[in-house]
Formats: sequence, C-alpha cells, structure tokens
Amino acid sequence: MAQALNVMLYGLGAIGSFYAFVLSRSQRVRLTVVARSNYEAVKQHGLHIKSENHGDHIVHPAKVVRTPAEAGETYDYVVCAHKAINQASATKQLAPAVDGSKTCVVIIQNGVGNEDPFREAFPKSPILSCVTWVGASQNTPGTVHHWKSENTQIGIFRNPELDPAVEQARLDEFTSLLREGHTPFSVEDNVQIQRWEKVVWNVAWNSLTTLTMLDTHAWLRSSPDAMPLTRNLMREVIDVARRCDVPLRYELVDELITKIQEMQPIGSSMQTDAKMGRPMEVDVILGTPVRKGRELGLSIPILEVLYTLLLAVDSRMKPSSS
Amino acid sequence: MAQALNVMLYGLGAIGSFYAFVLSRSQRVRLTVVARSNYEAVKQHGLHIKSENHGDHIVHPAKVVRTPAEAGETYDYVVCAHKAINQASATKQLAPAVDGSKTCVVIIQNGVGNEDPFREAFPKSPILSCVTWVGASQNTPGTVHHWKSENTQIGIFRNPELDPAVEQARLDEFTSLLREGHTPFSVEDNVQIQRWEKVVWNVAWNSLTTLTMLDTHAWLRSSPDAMPLTRNLMREVIDVARRCDVPLRYELVDELITKIQEMQPIGSSMQTDAKMGRPMEVDVILGTPVRKGRELGLSIPILEVLYTLLLAVDSRMKPSSS
Repeated sequence: MAQALNVMLYGLGAIGSFYAFVLSRSQRVRLTVVARSNYEAVKQHGLHIKSENHGDHIVHPAKVVRTPAEAGETYDYVVCAHKAINQASATKQLAPAVDGSKTCVVIIQNGVGNEDPFREAFPKSPILSCVTWVGASQNTPGTVHHWKSENTQIGIFRNPELDPAVEQARLDEFTSLLREGHTPFSVEDNVQIQRWEKVVWNVAWNSLTTLTMLDTHAWLRSSPDAMPLTRNLMREVIDVARRCDVPLRYELVDELITKIQEMQPIGSSMQTDAKMGRPMEVDVILGTPVRKGRELGLSIPILEVLYTLLLAVDSRMKPSSS
Repeated sequence: MAQALNVMLYGLGAIGSFYAFVLSRSQRVRLTVVARSNYEAVKQHGLHIKSENHGDHIVHPAKVVRTPAEAGETYDYVVCAHKAINQASATKQLAPAVDGSKTCVVIIQNGVGNEDPFREAFPKSPILSCVTWVGASQNTPGTVHHWKSENTQIGIFRNPELDPAVEQARLDEFTSLLREGHTPFSVEDNVQIQRWEKVVWNVAWNSLTTLTMLDTHAWLRSSPDAMPLTRNLMREVIDVARRCDVPLRYELVDELITKIQEMQPIGSSMQTDAKMGRPMEVDVILGTPVRKGRELGLSIPILEVLYTLLLAVDSRMKPSSS
C-alpha cells in the first residue's frame, strides 16, 4: 500500500464537504475534517453527499473535530475551504496542525490575495492555490447536494524560500489525489490569472445582486445604465489585475456577459449571506482589488463606491463592537 | 369679507396634510383636498392634525375628492404635495382643475426639475416653487403628527410668458395665506438655490441609507471610506448645480455634515419607501442631477453608480411590466 497522507479539511461548508468527499475516495488519504455548525451531524452520521455527477455517498472521516488544535497532530496537507471572512483568525486556528515545510497548505476560496496571510503565518509551507467551479449547497447540516458544475484550477503560489522541485512534487501529489477522487481539474502555470478572472465575475455579480437584491438578469434589465455600469466595473477590475502583472484580457468582459446571459438568472453567495445576516466576503473579493488599485493610483470609481457600500452592509451583519 | 380663494391640495400625505391644515386656517380659503388611501377617513371624520407647534386640530375641507376631475371646477391655486414619482401622470390628473393663467400651481416637493412637466402641461400658469422643512408622519389614515421642524422656502419659477408683476402678485397672495396659517416661511429670489441645497442633502442621505439600510450615523461610521465618499458625492451634486447656474457654495458640504452629526441618527423617506415596497423618488432626487451632469459632460461617478443601483432597487417596487 502506498504511503498514507494525513489530510485536514478545514471549513466543512458545501464546497469543503465536496472536496472532503473527493479526497476520501483516495485509498492513500487519512482524512480529518474540522466542522463547526455541522459537527454533531457529521460526527454521528458521517457526511452525506448527493451528487448529480458522482451519486450518493456517505463519508466517514478518520477524525471529526471542532478545531485544528483538537486533532492533536500535524498534517501533510491542510486544505482550506472555509469562507474567507477572517483569514488572520483562520491561520491562528490552523497553527497547531501545521508543521513548517512538511505541511502543504491548499487554498480553495473565492477572492484574490487570499494566500498572503497564510504565507506570512507559515513562511516555510508550500501553498497550492485553487479556483473552484463546483456548485453545491448544504441546506441540512451534514447533507450536501452537488449539481453538475465541477472543475478545479490549481497552481503553485511560489515560495521563494523553497526549491521549485519541492513545490512541484506537492502539486503533483495533490493533483494525483484529485485524480483518484475522479474530479476534473487543470493545472495552471499562473493560477492568479484564473483567480482574478473569477474575481471579475464575483465582483460584479456578488456586489450588484447584494446591493439591489435582484437576480443577475433582473439587474441587467433594471435600467439602460445597468449593463454599461457592469461592463465598466469589470474593466476596472481587469485594469487592476493587469497593473498587478496578472495578464487578463479585456475580451473577458464580453465572455462573462455572454456567459451570464446564457445561464438561468442567479443571485450570489454574497446576496445569500446578506439575506441570512451572515458576514460577507467583501474583503477578498472587492477589498484586495480596491487596495491594489489605490496603491497603483488607478481610477476605479465604481469599485470604490460598491466596496464602501458593501462594507456598510456588512457592518450590519457583524455583532456590534461599540 | 375678503374675496374667497378656491384652493386644491393635491396629495394628502403627511406633508400635504400639514399644508392643508395651514391653508384651512385662512378665512379666505375654500379648500378642496384630493385624497387617495385616506379618502374614507378624511371624508368621514376630517383631517386630524396633532402638532407640537400648533396643537390639535381637525380640518373639515369644503370638498374631499378622489381625483381632481371629481371636483368639477377649476382653482385659483393647485398646491401639489404628492410624492414626485410620476409627474407626467400628475399633470394629466390635474388638468381638469387648472384654468390657464387663472390657476397658480404651487409645488411643494423634494427634488429638482419638478417644475418642468407642470410648465409644459400648463404653459400659461404661474408656478410657485417651495422647499419644505416640515417633519410629519401619517401612520393612521387621516391622522397626521407634526413635530417641531417647520419652515417653507418659496419663490417664483419664472414664466417668460407672464408679466413679472402678475407672478409677484400671486407670490404675495399665497404667502399671505401662509402668514394667516401661522407657519414660518421665507421668500427667496432664486428658490432653485434652496431646492438644489436640499437635493445635496437628499441625494446623500436618501441614497446611502436606502442602499445600506443603515441610519445616517451607522453609515458614516461603517468604514473609513464612508465619510469621504459622502463628501465627494455632495461635491458632485454641487458641481452640477453650479454648472446649471445655481450658485451653491462648496462650504455647504461642511455645513450639511455638521448638521447631520448634530442630529439624532435618521433614516430617510426613500429608505422607508424601500422597506415598505413603495416606489421611490429616484428621478427627481438623483435622475435630474445625473441627466444634467451627463449633458454638461461632468465627472459624476458616485452619482452615476448610486442612481443606477437605486433604479434597480426601485424596479423591485413597481409591478412587473414584462
């Protein structure tokens, strides 16, 4: 039998649960999951996945814990699929499970700039950065529905302290687990391109559906100004990406508009968070582009206004700190 | 006894009801009110005013009607205090009550550009334009609470077809009614200054409290960017006013910020409309500044974004027209 790999999955929401399922399919993986609101359900009954692509499965992880510290060990892989609300507190939580360069951190989150706090907290760890296109929901704790959309774009977040061959070996090993889990993926030379491309999408649809509480299509037909505003907003994000040496093409605007128009009307995860009164991923989705844009002296008026409004909406979601 | 003046009050919301009360105090006024949702209550019991400044009163108008046509006569004054949602349909409704230059139209509304559709529909009528600073609410149909805030700024909206002396006579006559109604007012040489000043206020607080569902103070402390955004937004409106030859001063920004900080936190009428699912005054408050700004080629990015978002929010409030 091949060498066992000790893997911790942190953040057992719908997306995290999907990847827990994928990883559990590899014979080599010994899986620990960190669960919060669904801890009791998963501890008692396992994790129930109902997938249009993969069928019905119940995953019984080797360990179900409430915090990384509770696991009492360190890991070969720490896979982060938690909501990117407070990355600083996440790295603090994860510290007991991380052992220098032995532990490879895998980040599966929306947004850009997500890797920075992990690099700072774990300077010797290799980091693999992922963009996920998995559609899933967890309406009952411990039961996750996955529908057809399924893809992962993965690449190395270069650590200048490490030998590139070491990072490549971790990338190869982790993608072999994805392969054994029968989920499609692509390896990207510069996964920041994919991360920023998805941010262009997320900046637009998350912001606009949250501030208006309309779905994508109702927003686009709400007035003659909605479409040009959306396109200009996407261009602003592309401007920032390009000045950050992430070579997005402006044609992406047309592609994303065509893509949304061919889809059914949708809301967004941020809109759902706002409706549920939960903290929203404002910082990784809009905050990083705004900060970079400001540092570079770019004109990003639409981004600036939406960001400031969403920070205000988000302030309603957090416990008062006055 | 002085000559009777036939006055129609159109729009019997809280503000309209307050002015109905003021006008009813003049012996010379024969008052008709056009009521919609509160028609039955006012028809049966009169209009009940509870004012911190004026005490308790019940107003029994000479006529209570559902539409101007129902009154079957024309008026010396048509006082418009309806919500400025659809000015074109309002002028159509009012046409049977208007008799050319005999009828003076008095507009008591928020916004700018409100006079234009009235001038177009009634080209021979003098128009008096008012800014109101009356705080009132009507939680029960026919019963209006008025608290302390009370002032009216009034001036002529010049009609080049008329002799200025005729317009001045109407202004003098109407202000004599306000005087007899014991409400404070000031006559303004160029009331567009006051209208635009109030629009600077309304653009900021209506938009920002509606899009964030926060009160004014919670908005201002929501992030370090909220205050500069608010100030820049106010400056954009002032830019437009100045280029429209309405000489607002940029010091107004400081004055309005100081004013709001000295007040209790408030929402806004637009926020209330949004919460209640009612159409909002987006067009007269933001639409006119945006259109003028675009015509003049001004840079008004914050206004543009807020306007487009509010049009989208407003589209939720209207019956679907697909």
